[in-house]
Amino acid sequence: MKGGPSQEDIRRHNLGALLRFVHLRGPASRATLAESLGLNRSTIMALTADLTAAGLVREELPRKPGRRAGRPSLVVRPESTRVYVLAFDVGVDRLVVARVGLGGEVLDRREGARDRGADASDLVTALVSAARSLVRKAGRDAVCVGAAVAFPGIVRRADDAIMFGPNLDIGDLSLGEALSRRLGLGIPVAVCNDADLGALAEHERGAGVGCDNLIYLHGDVGVGGGIIVGGRLLGGDQGFGGEIGHMVVNPGGRPCACGAQGCLEAEVGERTLLAHAEREEGPDGREAVRAVVEAADWGDIVAREALHRVGTWLGIGVANLVNVFNPGLVVFGGTLRDVYLGSAAQVRSVLATNALAASREKVRLRTAALGDDTTLVGAAEFAFTEVLADPVQVLARLKAPEDTPVL
Amino acid sequence: MKGGPSQEDIRRHNLGALLRFVHLRGPASRATLAESLGLNRSTIMALTADLTAAGLVREELPRKPGRRAGRPSLVVRPESTRVYVLAFDVGVDRLVVARVGLGGEVLDRREGARDRGADASDLVTALVSAARSLVRKAGRDAVCVGAAVAFPGIVRRADDAIMFGPNLDIGDLSLGEALSRRLGLGIPVAVCNDADLGALAEHERGAGVGCDNLIYLHGDVGVGGGIIVGGRLLGGDQGFGGEIGHMVVNPGGRPCACGAQGCLEAEVGERTLLAHAEREEGPDGREAVRAVVEAADWGDIVAREALHRVGTWLGIGVANLVNVFNPGLVVFGGTLRDVYLGSAAQVRSVLATNALAASREKVRLRTAALGDDTTLVGAAEFAFTEVLADPVQVLARLKAPEDTPVL
Repeated sequence: MKGGPSQEDIRRHNLGALLRFVHLRGPASRATLAESLGLNRSTIMALTADLTAAGLVREELPRKPGRRAGRPSLVVRPESTRVYVLAFDVGVDRLVVARVGLGGEVLDRREGARDRGADASDLVTALVSAARSLVRKAGRDAVCVGAAVAFPGIVRRADDAIMFGPNLDIGDLSLGEALSRRLGLGIPVAVCNDADLGALAEHERGAGVGCDNLIYLHGDVGVGGGIIVGGRLLGGDQGFGGEIGHMVVNPGGRPCACGAQGCLEAEVGERTLLAHAEREEGPDGREAVRAVVEAADWGDIVAREALHRVGTWLGIGVANLVNVFNPGLVVFGGTLRDVYLGSAAQVRSVLATNALAASREKVRLRTAALGDDTTLVGAAEFAFTEVLADPVQVLARLKAPEDTPVL
Repeated sequence: MKGGPSQEDIRRHNLGALLRFVHLRGPASRATLAESLGLNRSTIMALTADLTAAGLVREELPRKPGRRAGRPSLVVRPESTRVYVLAFDVGVDRLVVARVGLGGEVLDRREGARDRGADASDLVTALVSAARSLVRKAGRDAVCVGAAVAFPGIVRRADDAIMFGPNLDIGDLSLGEALSRRLGLGIPVAVCNDADLGALAEHERGAGVGCDNLIYLHGDVGVGGGIIVGGRLLGGDQGFGGEIGHMVVNPGGRPCACGAQGCLEAEVGERTLLAHAEREEGPDGREAVRAVVEAADWGDIVAREALHRVGTWLGIGVANLVNVFNPGLVVFGGTLRDVYLGSAAQVRSVLATNALAASREKVRLRTAALGDDTTLVGAAEFAFTEVLADPVQVLARLKAPEDTPVL
């Protein structure tokens, strides 16, 4: 119930809105910006001048000229190679670190396997080493404006503490603090639940652009969820919201790492699929999940039956979410992308009998448009949050000489 | 990504914020308003003058003088008896119509039983007749600024069409339009899902004041839900969100009116409780539910067992919601208030084994603070939405002479 904003609040909001527009939608002419943001051209000109002076955008000729004859109008383009974030994607079996430019382009990346037995210290060392090599390769005048980690666990919003993450145990380590200190870039490193970031990424740049009510289901070893309600990520009271993997779909069913039985994760997670497919003894990880789906495609009865069983519980889970959220879209990412592709008929059949017609009729089921990079892109988007909220001030602070990294 | 608001937008916002403050929190001094709304005193004075001129508030001496010596300062008070809404609460067995003043006071009400066999036309006639008698008793200068109906069914936001409501079937009737036309007050009548309104009411005036993430579970004959996420009602893509009653908690369980099996409604609804308690043949309705809870209190083994069974599924449902939403509060209303009181130990026990510790530790379980009036109060709050969003303009329009009701 607060009163209205000040002129300075409005200016800051408008700077952020303009930068956010070109960050998400790409280079745009002043006319497009004026129309899209509901501002007049002189305001757009003043805002662009401020952002240009701060080194966040530049005006230039469009790379693809328009169809109209005559001199093409200038476009406002984000400074993609100069202003960047570091995005860390921590999977149970895989680590990715990327340097992502303003505008969302992945400028450079390091990727490697993670040994399931590796400890917290190994994790930090691997991430820092990859990040340093990315920072070194950035231009001298490039500025890192944020960093964030996608992590497969429940993260407390207040302090980024990891409350529960049985599939990748790092003990009491304060991951964000450790990374921030070791990187020495003078920026904090946020840690977020991987599926929450997946939801953000698909909403802003993936299958869910334009859809303000969507559910993202992420499979790694476990099953996570990220939920966008009315355009915003559902965090809940402490940031633990979206734990779809621990929704009980089969009371008295398979034991789950959380202590309950019949959670969605216990019924559709990697270990269960491999067990149903009689492949517990073989390799695990996303390649093993893909192998089951491929075997089923080739007609392997055991693999087909395994996907059918998993698809049934996935269908119950999706039906419950459709009834509770009335989403426009459900997106399957991580290993659930493959699992869904291998069990779509069964998921849809269970959905048809268990979801209310009103909510079921218009919901779309899709796989993650950003593929294996969904959670990585989400980490990058999260890392851009602060600079997009208050572009000029944040950049001025980060460019101060005492913050120059010494690597 | 729209640009900033205009001066007129800000003024309208501030008028609404001030009116909303005194509507929800009661009369307040200019000093309190200035501090709470983050505005300076001269702005508060100008806003108060505008609202006073429009007949929405008045300034007067506080009814309870403060402790400080000297002349007490004036308070801004909503015009509770002059500016009112009509709230309709349609239950399967009970109809309530109330005239609710700005500030939330129920000024007058009509209440009666509803025959489960009555049809849509009987329903409209009963509601209109009660509403007319309330309007007649209002003062000559009183203005009705809105009307809303709490209805036990799924309502489409775009046109208030009832998509699914097996417990109270009114066929194809467009309830809001029919009521608006027959009332002849020149105002539209909104129709909303009863549990959504219950959530709104408990959030604004009940057990959930100050809690921005809460879940309201409503029992009538069926089970409905209303969910507040980040301070806003979860509607979903078409307004069908919150259908917690059709979350499958027991796959392959009892058949539900929706066609699925083992929905929360099928496992904990009135008919199931009465069946478990071996009382299918006797009376039904909320008194029958209360009788089971009372019998259990007195030691009736069959009633206790019935509540234990229902409490188990209610616990699974609540655990799922706690994992997915990380709410600060779960509120039980309607007949579920009694059911929860009679099965709280079992609900909490199931919650303890099925919800993640992180989300479970801080969640509170409570009964509706507004008692049997939760959904009615929610309808009133919803009916006030428009006038609180743009007070002066809405009131000016409604006071125009051609809109004067002729009853």
